[in-house]
Amino acid sequence: MTPSELYDRTLRMIQPVSPAWIDKAYQRLDSLTKPRRSLGYLEELAARLVAVLHQAQSKIAGKRVFVFAGDHKVVAEGVSAYPSAVTALMVKNIIGGGAAINVLARRVNAEVEVIDIGMAEDPGKLKGLLRLNVKRGADNIACGAAMSADEAVRSIVVGIGRANQAADSHVTLMATGEMGIGNTTPAAALLSVLLDLPVRDVVGTGTGLDTAGLERKRHIVEQAVTVNRARCTDPLSVLAALGGLEIAGICGLCLGAAARERPVIVDGFISSAGALVAMRLCPAVKDYLFFAHMSAEPGHRKFFEKESLRPIVSLDMRLGEGTGAAIAMQIMEDALAIYNEMATFEQAGITPGA
Amino acid sequence: MTPSELYDRTLRMIQPVSPAWIDKAYQRLDSLTKPRRSLGYLEELAARLVAVLHQAQSKIAGKRVFVFAGDHKVVAEGVSAYPSAVTALMVKNIIGGGAAINVLARRVNAEVEVIDIGMAEDPGKLKGLLRLNVKRGADNIACGAAMSADEAVRSIVVGIGRANQAADSHVTLMATGEMGIGNTTPAAALLSVLLDLPVRDVVGTGTGLDTAGLERKRHIVEQAVTVNRARCTDPLSVLAALGGLEIAGICGLCLGAAARERPVIVDGFISSAGALVAMRLCPAVKDYLFFAHMSAEPGHRKFFEKESLRPIVSLDMRLGEGTGAAIAMQIMEDALAIYNEMATFEQAGITPGA
Repeated sequence: MTPSELYDRTLRMIQPVSPAWIDKAYQRLDSLTKPRRSLGYLEELAARLVAVLHQAQSKIAGKRVFVFAGDHKVVAEGVSAYPSAVTALMVKNIIGGGAAINVLARRVNAEVEVIDIGMAEDPGKLKGLLRLNVKRGADNIACGAAMSADEAVRSIVVGIGRANQAADSHVTLMATGEMGIGNTTPAAALLSVLLDLPVRDVVGTGTGLDTAGLERKRHIVEQAVTVNRARCTDPLSVLAALGGLEIAGICGLCLGAAARERPVIVDGFISSAGALVAMRLCPAVKDYLFFAHMSAEPGHRKFFEKESLRPIVSLDMRLGEGTGAAIAMQIMEDALAIYNEMATFEQAGITPGA
Repeated sequence: MTPSELYDRTLRMIQPVSPAWIDKAYQRLDSLTKPRRSLGYLEELAARLVAVLHQAQSKIAGKRVFVFAGDHKVVAEGVSAYPSAVTALMVKNIIGGGAAINVLARRVNAEVEVIDIGMAEDPGKLKGLLRLNVKRGADNIACGAAMSADEAVRSIVVGIGRANQAADSHVTLMATGEMGIGNTTPAAALLSVLLDLPVRDVVGTGTGLDTAGLERKRHIVEQAVTVNRARCTDPLSVLAALGGLEIAGICGLCLGAAARERPVIVDGFISSAGALVAMRLCPAVKDYLFFAHMSAEPGHRKFFEKESLRPIVSLDMRLGEGTGAAIAMQIMEDALAIYNEMATFEQAGITPGA
């Protein structure tokens, strides 16, 4: 199967989650020894998870956080507090187990898979690194398109492939993550175009720009959107024009997991940009996505508002890697444990209240 | 030592947490392989926890959720969707391991301790129930004081005693919880008086009142505040006038833990009322408190605003028992794991950015 065929087939496979399963899940939740719906959003998470997995007694087997690594030539415009070289250094840190995502994934017993999908330099053969590079860094979006349509499809297919491999093994719960110096810039550009929001609403300080840096970044995102405006004719071309390889990979992971009826936890600002492209390519994918956290990036709040979505936590994190997703993973499992393990009113000999 | 002496001694023992320890903790956090402060509130939690435990490499040993059970004769006024008898039934459910708190405590490997501090009926000797009853239900606050000053002190001392016992054993991290049909009514009354807020701002539907029930509850809380106004001369007398035995126990647990330099996770709306009394009795106790979640009760948001506090999660929960605290416990441990386990820039061979 060519990348293009796998891409088309995956999009066709995605079906909305059955409302009947949601109802069935709430029936059980309402039979448990607690005032009706008193666990709030935890019950909604449980109901959606059970419906996605469509099993009466849903269990999470394996968990995996996918860290897609990619670079951005737009960093040359001074949009990041860190140089591009840090992407490779941090990839090595993650492979070595010393990064924030490693700590948080260990806490929740999840695997971390690191994928070179768009790193600027080939780090060579490294234990723990999947070498699936599509392009050595996204091109400078302030001057033109980030990648070709073909490269965008191939990057999406890398994500689809990872989701399929995970679904074929023991992984029930997938989470998105990324590492890519400069990637709040393409993410902001994508959000501006896909949500029809002014650039100033979606650009933030990223990993730590000062005021002058923020102004420069706003200007560059404006320029990127203007330069690429004519190319932005449909969701895929928006991704190719303004995205990044790792953002396309995240988009693909969302699509691939949904096609296989697996829930996906979407990490922060960058991951939301990838997930948004996936939702524009196929609205039904939304049923399979669980948004982990609201990032400190101001554009992220706009994203949640515009899409009527709710993050699981809001801890002012702005690190990426999948760190917010790992924290949300615990809460998703809490929700499922409530569903599976609490006593019913009948078991406890209590007559439920009004 | 008499209860009154232990109470006085505990209040005198509580010392503010050293800002030098907070600074020291941030020094380490800033040396870790992430953009400075990019883990947001997680870093604040880590810094405060390390400062409370004042250990360079802080470890959480045992964890325990304390469920104080008490009844409220004000339930006769129709302020709750459930009858008082449900308190005893739910206490048995918790002892039996089938309640929401059992599920969530198991997930985080925490013990659950259930204390009869103010249940209306003596459930008799039950495996897993601590019988430390001070009074068989708080008196009807719509007609007079909930309890005497002596009973309030003795209830606080029950909480102090449990904190001391826990600190003497292996427990590093304590969490408050409660079970008591009708207890959002005294909690709302306490918040109204101690935060100087109109009753309508702090009264909510509790475990599930309808509109008429909510109106009745507002009226009863108004009446309780009016009837007891003259008694409310200092924090302890406010607690005695408008509180509940389990709320006093929670207040005592906060004080006792702080006196022993142990962090306490404060659960939801009811627990916050107990913690607020503790903060009014001794402002320094605040340094030891970690507020788990913002409840769906509208008065809880007012509490956070007025006291300039921040909940760890906001999941619209309104169950109590310590359920929100158990969820927050995971995130507190995540924060500590980040502090202890991440690689430093030096270890990873990366030069930190601006």
